[in-house]
Amino acid sequence: MNNDADPSPLTGRSHAAAQDAADPLAVIRDRFLLPDVIYLDGNSLGALPAGVPDAVADVVRRQWGTDLIRSWGANAWWKAPVRVGDSVGRLVGAAPGQVVVGDSTSVNLFKAMVSAVRLRPGRTSLVIDPDSFPTDLYIADSVARLLGLTVRRVRPRDLDAALDDDVAAVVLNHVDYRTGELFDAPSLTAATQRIGALSIWDLCHSAGVLPVELDAWDVDLAVGCGYKYLNGGPGAPAYLYVNHRHRPHLDQPLTGWHGHVRPFAMDDPYEPAETIDRARVGTPPILSLLALEAALHVYDGVTMEQVRAKSLSLTGLAIDLADAHLSAYGIDVVTPRSEQRRGGHVALRHPQAAALTQALDKRGVIGDFRTPNVIRLGFHPLYVRHIDVHDAVQTLHDILTSGQHWSQR
Amino acid sequence: MNNDADPSPLTGRSHAAAQDAADPLAVIRDRFLLPDVIYLDGNSLGALPAGVPDAVADVVRRQWGTDLIRSWGANAWWKAPVRVGDSVGRLVGAAPGQVVVGDSTSVNLFKAMVSAVRLRPGRTSLVIDPDSFPTDLYIADSVARLLGLTVRRVRPRDLDAALDDDVAAVVLNHVDYRTGELFDAPSLTAATQRIGALSIWDLCHSAGVLPVELDAWDVDLAVGCGYKYLNGGPGAPAYLYVNHRHRPHLDQPLTGWHGHVRPFAMDDPYEPAETIDRARVGTPPILSLLALEAALHVYDGVTMEQVRAKSLSLTGLAIDLADAHLSAYGIDVVTPRSEQRRGGHVALRHPQAAALTQALDKRGVIGDFRTPNVIRLGFHPLYVRHIDVHDAVQTLHDILTSGQHWSQR
Repeated sequence: MNNDADPSPLTGRSHAAAQDAADPLAVIRDRFLLPDVIYLDGNSLGALPAGVPDAVADVVRRQWGTDLIRSWGANAWWKAPVRVGDSVGRLVGAAPGQVVVGDSTSVNLFKAMVSAVRLRPGRTSLVIDPDSFPTDLYIADSVARLLGLTVRRVRPRDLDAALDDDVAAVVLNHVDYRTGELFDAPSLTAATQRIGALSIWDLCHSAGVLPVELDAWDVDLAVGCGYKYLNGGPGAPAYLYVNHRHRPHLDQPLTGWHGHVRPFAMDDPYEPAETIDRARVGTPPILSLLALEAALHVYDGVTMEQVRAKSLSLTGLAIDLADAHLSAYGIDVVTPRSEQRRGGHVALRHPQAAALTQALDKRGVIGDFRTPNVIRLGFHPLYVRHIDVHDAVQTLHDILTSGQHWSQR
Repeated sequence: MNNDADPSPLTGRSHAAAQDAADPLAVIRDRFLLPDVIYLDGNSLGALPAGVPDAVADVVRRQWGTDLIRSWGANAWWKAPVRVGDSVGRLVGAAPGQVVVGDSTSVNLFKAMVSAVRLRPGRTSLVIDPDSFPTDLYIADSVARLLGLTVRRVRPRDLDAALDDDVAAVVLNHVDYRTGELFDAPSLTAATQRIGALSIWDLCHSAGVLPVELDAWDVDLAVGCGYKYLNGGPGAPAYLYVNHRHRPHLDQPLTGWHGHVRPFAMDDPYEPAETIDRARVGTPPILSLLALEAALHVYDGVTMEQVRAKSLSLTGLAIDLADAHLSAYGIDVVTPRSEQRRGGHVALRHPQAAALTQALDKRGVIGDFRTPNVIRLGFHPLYVRHIDVHDAVQTLHDILTSGQHWSQR
């Protein structure tokens, strides 16, 4: 790795350093505990926020160990799913009382899809982008089987032609997990709602790295995970957003006791809470949930516009450097060059993508491989620097020119 | 609280102390970090095992913070749901490869019930004990609605008369969460299977405190939680047991990508894993999951027969003392006196149960209240002593004789 000047074939390290010097978010990097690697996989597992270890230790030793069962009230564990939901809501443009945290993304997709279909009785089709993250497709098929629906796999660009009044809901990923393409959520939501269907957005690869305005866009339902850009830790619980207007009618299928209007009355049968608590299921994983809550503080005082500006600067630099220095070695940039269509990560295509990702890893540049031929590089604007982008491309260039990836197979 | 001799109206503290001195499990108490209270609510939230804080700190700082995404392989996060499942399996008589840990108990009940009904096509009834923990009832009703079934609420004692060849599955709680009654799982399982139905057991209030032999009893499916007697911490993930013979046919509805046979191939459509991994859904909460794994080591070198012997000794002492000293004050023992029908906790009935539970809490004896009139006292054999039982009953006696609970309202 180059730490000084520019001894490498790539130009621009000093320019990258100057960009970092002018970056208003540069100081936020100190809010993370980062090992000595270039970490470009924060879109798979976010880095560790500095406040999390002490927060988790407090949850374990004091709240669990000392306060024991009393913590459900004394340390407000009971309210954590909605409280943390409101914190997530601030990052995705959701006013309080519409987001609940708990369960995995897959489970929340299940809740969202069944609920959406029940809100549109008589309609028998679900529309989903075939390029969605696979779990979205699998859950859609399962929901369809349970409810007797047809699933139509339709790409966002073909949506208008595919919509009709049999469609109950449209499920889309805000950013494509592979290509990094960003879709126009406001207009796709509006198109969906014009034919009376509900719009369900999967925010896994957008929330925390670019502006999401669920209320302003009038989205119906949304889900997202806690462990990517939100830095909540491995397997941090996911969240479900339910637009205020749907809450009174939300009829979700995982009727666990935490969603009951009077959970401690132990009543039979189930009666859903009036509040967003009705989207809760069973006891949430408190250690993981409160780690996420502590992690969200890295966004304190940061605007999503700042985050987006830096994100575009980082991904733009990556694309420019790849175009200039890697295309001769068979690397194609898959991610859209248009800023309006670009999410927070950059996908590079190469026939030996798997071996190249491994070779990068050995040299301390951590990205990830997505089958069959994509190197995926995620740039978290709160801790990735422009020099990291430069050095990562430099490293990939060095590997390609030396042919080292051939020996990694 | 009495720390010496017997200055109290209750006899027997020295006898209780002698029982503790002879207790082979007495030393296991040192495996927990216990505050200065008498903790009789380990059946709601188990106490903190001493090994957990360091284990969790390692997961947070080293595995997440330093190893980052590599931990899915390098620290074997990917295999944790089945690996921890096998550890739980050792406590419930399940050979390896039949238990997966992840999601809440409610979600696992959903998976179990839908799967069971799909294993018995053409049958349209679910049978469940109306005295089950409410979430079991709520989920049964939801499953019935999704699959077009009828739910029959039948008590275990009435099971034989209620079973017919329309019943797909029978869902029972091994120990009643309120009364502490233990049901005869082997014979109820056999009765269920005689009419061709599947037996689903909820082990939340039995696993970890008494012998459970899922394989030997030939149970079909079972669920249980990680945070009660298993001491996994607040909201520790729950588990699902699938008998080996059903695994190849298990067709569960939460088809998240972790259950796919090739999760990283990102294939469409869903194809379930050959192994018990097919019961997995989405990314599990790693902090909570690995806290549970560390917690299970408190059982190292301990047999479930030892645990059961001490449990019966503790609950037997509680019942004897309550009969001798509390019945005059309107306290009834609800829990069966027969050892064959008694689980790990004791339920005491009193019209002012809520106020009494609060008064106990103020005096450092933590139990819990179950509506409408039950004081529930759980005695975890790995950390509760006979003198704790004595002192708890003494404290309750003092409250009742002084009338202090009246001022708690």
